[in-house]
Amino acid sequence: MIHHFTDQLSAAAARLASPVVVGLDPRWEQLPDSFRASGDDSWGAQARAYTAFCHGVVDVVAPLVPAVKIQAAFFEELGPAGMAAMAAVIEHAQQRGLLVILDGKRNDIGSTAIAYARGYLGRSVSPWQADALTISPYLGDDSLAPFVETAQQRGAGLFVLIKTSNPGSRMVQDLVADGKTIYRHVAQHVEQLATETAGGCGYGSIGAVVGATFPEQLAELRAAMPHTWFLVPGFGSQGGTAAKVALAFDDHGGGAIVNNSRGILFAYARREYADRFGPARWQEAVDAATREMIDELRAAVG
Amino acid sequence: MIHHFTDQLSAAAARLASPVVVGLDPRWEQLPDSFRASGDDSWGAQARAYTAFCHGVVDVVAPLVPAVKIQAAFFEELGPAGMAAMAAVIEHAQQRGLLVILDGKRNDIGSTAIAYARGYLGRSVSPWQADALTISPYLGDDSLAPFVETAQQRGAGLFVLIKTSNPGSRMVQDLVADGKTIYRHVAQHVEQLATETAGGCGYGSIGAVVGATFPEQLAELRAAMPHTWFLVPGFGSQGGTAAKVALAFDDHGGGAIVNNSRGILFAYARREYADRFGPARWQEAVDAATREMIDELRAAVG
Repeated sequence: MIHHFTDQLSAAAARLASPVVVGLDPRWEQLPDSFRASGDDSWGAQARAYTAFCHGVVDVVAPLVPAVKIQAAFFEELGPAGMAAMAAVIEHAQQRGLLVILDGKRNDIGSTAIAYARGYLGRSVSPWQADALTISPYLGDDSLAPFVETAQQRGAGLFVLIKTSNPGSRMVQDLVADGKTIYRHVAQHVEQLATETAGGCGYGSIGAVVGATFPEQLAELRAAMPHTWFLVPGFGSQGGTAAKVALAFDDHGGGAIVNNSRGILFAYARREYADRFGPARWQEAVDAATREMIDELRAAVG
Repeated sequence: MIHHFTDQLSAAAARLASPVVVGLDPRWEQLPDSFRASGDDSWGAQARAYTAFCHGVVDVVAPLVPAVKIQAAFFEELGPAGMAAMAAVIEHAQQRGLLVILDGKRNDIGSTAIAYARGYLGRSVSPWQADALTISPYLGDDSLAPFVETAQQRGAGLFVLIKTSNPGSRMVQDLVADGKTIYRHVAQHVEQLATETAGGCGYGSIGAVVGATFPEQLAELRAAMPHTWFLVPGFGSQGGTAAKVALAFDDHGGGAIVNNSRGILFAYARREYADRFGPARWQEAVDAATREMIDELRAAVG
């Protein structure tokens, strides 16, 4: 059982001097050849390969980072077999000492929101056992409340989508109402929830997803949300750089964790690593890419 | 394989004169006693009970309604065992001739959105085999596009959240930007997608979720979205009446389908049915409640 998710995350990130979360986004076509060698590409075979691959990533990154972020979509894509694989990967990551953020972007209303919260949040008490879950705010404050209540009861965390890393985030999030963008309206509510759930680290167990690709908004939201821990996607393949994501951190180098998925998982295929490692030594490439990102962030965040 | 989801839905609703979708929202505490008689309330046991109960509901309502809406949250709440149950219920409903709308309120960006779409949409080609999926618009137009593309390729449908039935929907959805509510901004985009995907019935395969609890907005959106089929939740236990939901329909009694979950599933426990049926005759109560709702809608929609 975890008593305050963000206190644990904050402590682990500080201890490792590593504000990095490795995104477990397995993709069949990009797995090293050995995982596809059997020629069986059934959903069950893919699910087994995802389990083995993600376990292999976890084994490499567990000493280096405080947390992994599991992208539910890639497991859900494989049906029930994929869901069983997702549960296995969550369990393995926690056994290796990692915090697990499940990126499911769930939401619903009333008792349905409670069902999601009870199903996903909390070690030993929930079947999925996630330490934290990403959720979407479109349905409003009363849809977030059941998640907040369950997270509090179980010492789990939440990350609410505020300003996402994709260009289309402007369609809804950047509209201006009453002199403020929609994402600032959501941010104001989430900062309130974070303040109410603040732990010893000063940050609440209710955090925010803020994309690495919009540095101005990162800086704006960092200033506006002093109690809200940021989960920052979009580093690497989406164009977020260390200099940009540095804006997500507080003056002590805390308050944020930066996700990298493809750039680490499939580092063996990146131009700068392909010659050094190649598919057979994919785990060494994961190790090198993770260490490189940590070093970049240490230099940029200071 | 279905060639155009909304054409099929429209034809089935017209043939049965029944614009009703039965929501499969199983809740452990509310199941008839017989499903909990073993005393085993493990997640696996609950999942087996959900499968048996939902199959029993499907067997009763299959001749009466065109579709069921499966609430993913209640199955996800039970972990991998629940997901296997959900797959079984989808399959059984389709074998009984029903269209299956999966209410997952999913969304993400780019290749992650593609993974959700490929995983959920389409009979025989996807592991979950849903005929349609509910999705959330907060991430913007480029997050919806992969769902639209996959739905089109596979003859499947989508329902985008526009104005939801909960009081808190006002927090984001009712904010006014550039002289229009946020839900109208989303509605404008969805109506465009619906127009581009219109089938022989005149409605697109991209529909909208509009709650029964806000009749003014139902009427406003019906007028503003002439090519968009509405999935209307909130009837019954949330306060939506036949007179209110009548506003969701077009002049020919088409263009909408109204969901009822608890009021049908657990009708055996409703005051007006408890004496007539009771827990042992819960399937007769499902039958009576479904027929009563159909009659109410026929009278109100005309």
